[in-house]
Amino acid sequence: MNTTTKFDIKNDRNLTMLVDFYELTMANGYLNNGVEDTIAYFDMFFRRIPDSGGYCIMAGVEQLIDYLKKLEFTSEDIKYLRSKNLFNEKFLNYLENFKFECDVWAIPEGTPVFPSEPLITVRGPIMQAQFIETMILLTINHQTLIATKAARICEAAGYRPVMEFGSRRAQGYDGALYGARAAIIGGCSSTACTMADELFDVPVTGTMAHSWIQLFDTEYEAFKAWASTYPDNTVLLVDTYNVLKSGIPNAIKVFDEVLKPLGKRPKAIRIDSGDITYLTIEARKLLDAAGYEDCKITISNSLDEFIIKAVLENGAQIDSFGVGERLITAKSEPVFGGVYKLVAIEKHGEIIPKIKISENVEKITNPGFKSLYRVYDNATKKAIADLIAINGETFDYTRPLELFHPNYTWKKKKVKNYTIKELMVKIFDKGQQCYESPSVMDIKNYSLEARETLWAEIRRLQNPHQYYVDLSKDLWNLKEFLLHEYSSMYEE
Amino acid sequence: MNTTTKFDIKNDRNLTMLVDFYELTMANGYLNNGVEDTIAYFDMFFRRIPDSGGYCIMAGVEQLIDYLKKLEFTSEDIKYLRSKNLFNEKFLNYLENFKFECDVWAIPEGTPVFPSEPLITVRGPIMQAQFIETMILLTINHQTLIATKAARICEAAGYRPVMEFGSRRAQGYDGALYGARAAIIGGCSSTACTMADELFDVPVTGTMAHSWIQLFDTEYEAFKAWASTYPDNTVLLVDTYNVLKSGIPNAIKVFDEVLKPLGKRPKAIRIDSGDITYLTIEARKLLDAAGYEDCKITISNSLDEFIIKAVLENGAQIDSFGVGERLITAKSEPVFGGVYKLVAIEKHGEIIPKIKISENVEKITNPGFKSLYRVYDNATKKAIADLIAINGETFDYTRPLELFHPNYTWKKKKVKNYTIKELMVKIFDKGQQCYESPSVMDIKNYSLEARETLWAEIRRLQNPHQYYVDLSKDLWNLKEFLLHEYSSMYEE
Repeated sequence: MNTTTKFDIKNDRNLTMLVDFYELTMANGYLNNGVEDTIAYFDMFFRRIPDSGGYCIMAGVEQLIDYLKKLEFTSEDIKYLRSKNLFNEKFLNYLENFKFECDVWAIPEGTPVFPSEPLITVRGPIMQAQFIETMILLTINHQTLIATKAARICEAAGYRPVMEFGSRRAQGYDGALYGARAAIIGGCSSTACTMADELFDVPVTGTMAHSWIQLFDTEYEAFKAWASTYPDNTVLLVDTYNVLKSGIPNAIKVFDEVLKPLGKRPKAIRIDSGDITYLTIEARKLLDAAGYEDCKITISNSLDEFIIKAVLENGAQIDSFGVGERLITAKSEPVFGGVYKLVAIEKHGEIIPKIKISENVEKITNPGFKSLYRVYDNATKKAIADLIAINGETFDYTRPLELFHPNYTWKKKKVKNYTIKELMVKIFDKGQQCYESPSVMDIKNYSLEARETLWAEIRRLQNPHQYYVDLSKDLWNLKEFLLHEYSSMYEE
Repeated sequence: MNTTTKFDIKNDRNLTMLVDFYELTMANGYLNNGVEDTIAYFDMFFRRIPDSGGYCIMAGVEQLIDYLKKLEFTSEDIKYLRSKNLFNEKFLNYLENFKFECDVWAIPEGTPVFPSEPLITVRGPIMQAQFIETMILLTINHQTLIATKAARICEAAGYRPVMEFGSRRAQGYDGALYGARAAIIGGCSSTACTMADELFDVPVTGTMAHSWIQLFDTEYEAFKAWASTYPDNTVLLVDTYNVLKSGIPNAIKVFDEVLKPLGKRPKAIRIDSGDITYLTIEARKLLDAAGYEDCKITISNSLDEFIIKAVLENGAQIDSFGVGERLITAKSEPVFGGVYKLVAIEKHGEIIPKIKISENVEKITNPGFKSLYRVYDNATKKAIADLIAINGETFDYTRPLELFHPNYTWKKKKVKNYTIKELMVKIFDKGQQCYESPSVMDIKNYSLEARETLWAEIRRLQNPHQYYVDLSKDLWNLKEFLLHEYSSMYEE
């Protein structure tokens, strides 16, 4: 299925130069030292789940593909780089004739992912594999952050409709646009971002601002004008003056006078301030008493997963939520800390695993060219664990699978009657795109289904159970070997 | 002075459709109800300073201008909107022939700004003035957030060089690009974002990643290769294995063997992990002992203003800082809460002020078409207060100026020997651009000078003194009148 929607017209930026300058100085250095063709393997992965949650939702692959297939240095770019007096002509010539040659693997968007798993793996000449670091991280970090936050908010809302409308507080235009895209993948029912709908064909919604009410002499007149214009989509914002004394009575009056004669029903009222629990309970009573039991109540006002959970527990009468700044910026934890690390190089055709050591144990990388598998229990269909293995390792499905904790290896279990699914797909083969991204709505639906394979304990908002991400025996042995080799170099 | 740099080649996006959908449904509604030509006044302002700081730094005007001058609905946009079955043909025809007609005023970028001040004022037909809300907020909120955060970080660093290098953790591509721009305006000395330099002609810097070290068989070989390639710009990352036992000794060896024979001096070493205070003190000793007193020490590792302040107070030996994710996302407070409110309409040529009331006193707007002034003490050249007045009010400079607190009106003072400067400039006149944005480096320099007019108590990182933002007597009277008028409508 193709990603381009019927209105794909603006998504054509060449982002080649959106790169940390050191990627360029390093690339020039590789060439200068004759190592530019060394084949390198890089993994992108993250170390912890934002908000101490139980899972993340992978997102951003479509935009990563867009970037990679448009990699090109324009003559203006070359002119600019030459002006820095740092790069030699051979290098600038290389860039001028740049042809992307890497293999790239990615976990499909919408998939629940966990710390230490490779989300993206790149294999190619070090000059190129290094160069794309900034954009891989920027793209995947941002969208995965927002999709993950959206998933948390939708879980808290019990998957009642959640409308994303944070554009005005987003961090930049793409923060708004791709943030809206990621929010839909994370589970939001719609966005207020018009461009997101135009480009990605996702549901767009929107009603009125307080200024609509203020422009008219009275709230009643403002409501009447709205209902007359949109009799099939009447959603009224009822908190400009006083929700219970003015907003709802005026809304009911307009429903009676404008919609009823047309045989139409109101869609909803929206409350954007005040004590949500009290106001929605009272609003529900007023609407029901007037015969508008089918008129929904939607709320908005600096919401996040915790406030949504609290007001629902308090008995608030809410049918849907509008969520802005706290979703579009992932306010409670606005950084997704994905990293991109060298894990292997090839020498004379042989893969030499590399490890990055650190005093901080979680910062030690998993070495080598790897594959990632998800293990499902055949009886419950639930995901039991993920398994990181050396690329090319095989499994004997006829025998039980032994899983063990990578740090506390005595914590182990044998799994029978299981299915193993490889998670990464190849998206570029020797520089050629070989994967088409599904539509955003297809990704969203896939993601909701994939979340169903996680136990409720993993999906919990607070204090979730930690999902198992284990290493294969061979990978574990390789890592131990490299760790001991390095530690002997710096013995006290 | 013109904003376009010698490499302005990619900054040409039409962002017209990056708009909250309700701006479109409202615009269609205005037309449908025959009020589309009502002249409306909107103010953009904010209510509180992030991180409880003492001031914000205005930023984003250049991009706002870019957006406004490119406002245009393409035939694809019209086709898309028609497909929603919500908008009437008269409205779509209006959009197809859209011609921007508003007057727009803005506070110039780099200016210190304070809560409740109009940062942007728009006057024009309600359909248009309403429509541009999303992009005004998105543009100014984002860049002002990052410029303000950068200013805090630079204040903490005592204006030692601060390098912005957060692209990989930014919220989207523009989060990286315009975030880098805003960081420079806020005071950063350079950015790692290559595209920011190419587009805005700002200093760009960058050295090497750990992967450069890992690619070579030894750290020594990696350093040697680097110094040979960049003898004039040798900055070495010394923490891949062990800073004091391996990194610095190898660096010194390479300085001696590669740079010395060429008559070159090393620029710096960089430390990206570990105990910064201890490591930099020891590194300084080792470098000095080897005769490299001029080799700078730069650090990076999840820095923000608080960590920078702490390590400097602890006696760390640091010449410059690299700051990433906590600056580019303003991690400690990633939302700038600017709002855009209707403040007046015109009826029969007369300006009718509008007020938005709220139970929350800080959320009450300042009504009317207004001007903003900064009052300076002629003796000290320091800014004493800002004054919001009704547009057209005049001041008698020969007499003392009486300032009073807008809520506690008994708090007042008389100012003599003062100068008053109007802060807003007109950037669009009846839809025509009438202001050219200065270059980013000029904005930065202006901003640093403007900050010098603020007392140290205002610039303090924590518990700063609150800068006075007062209302003129006439504006205060107007606001009181409207508040009493509204409250009498909803008396208990």
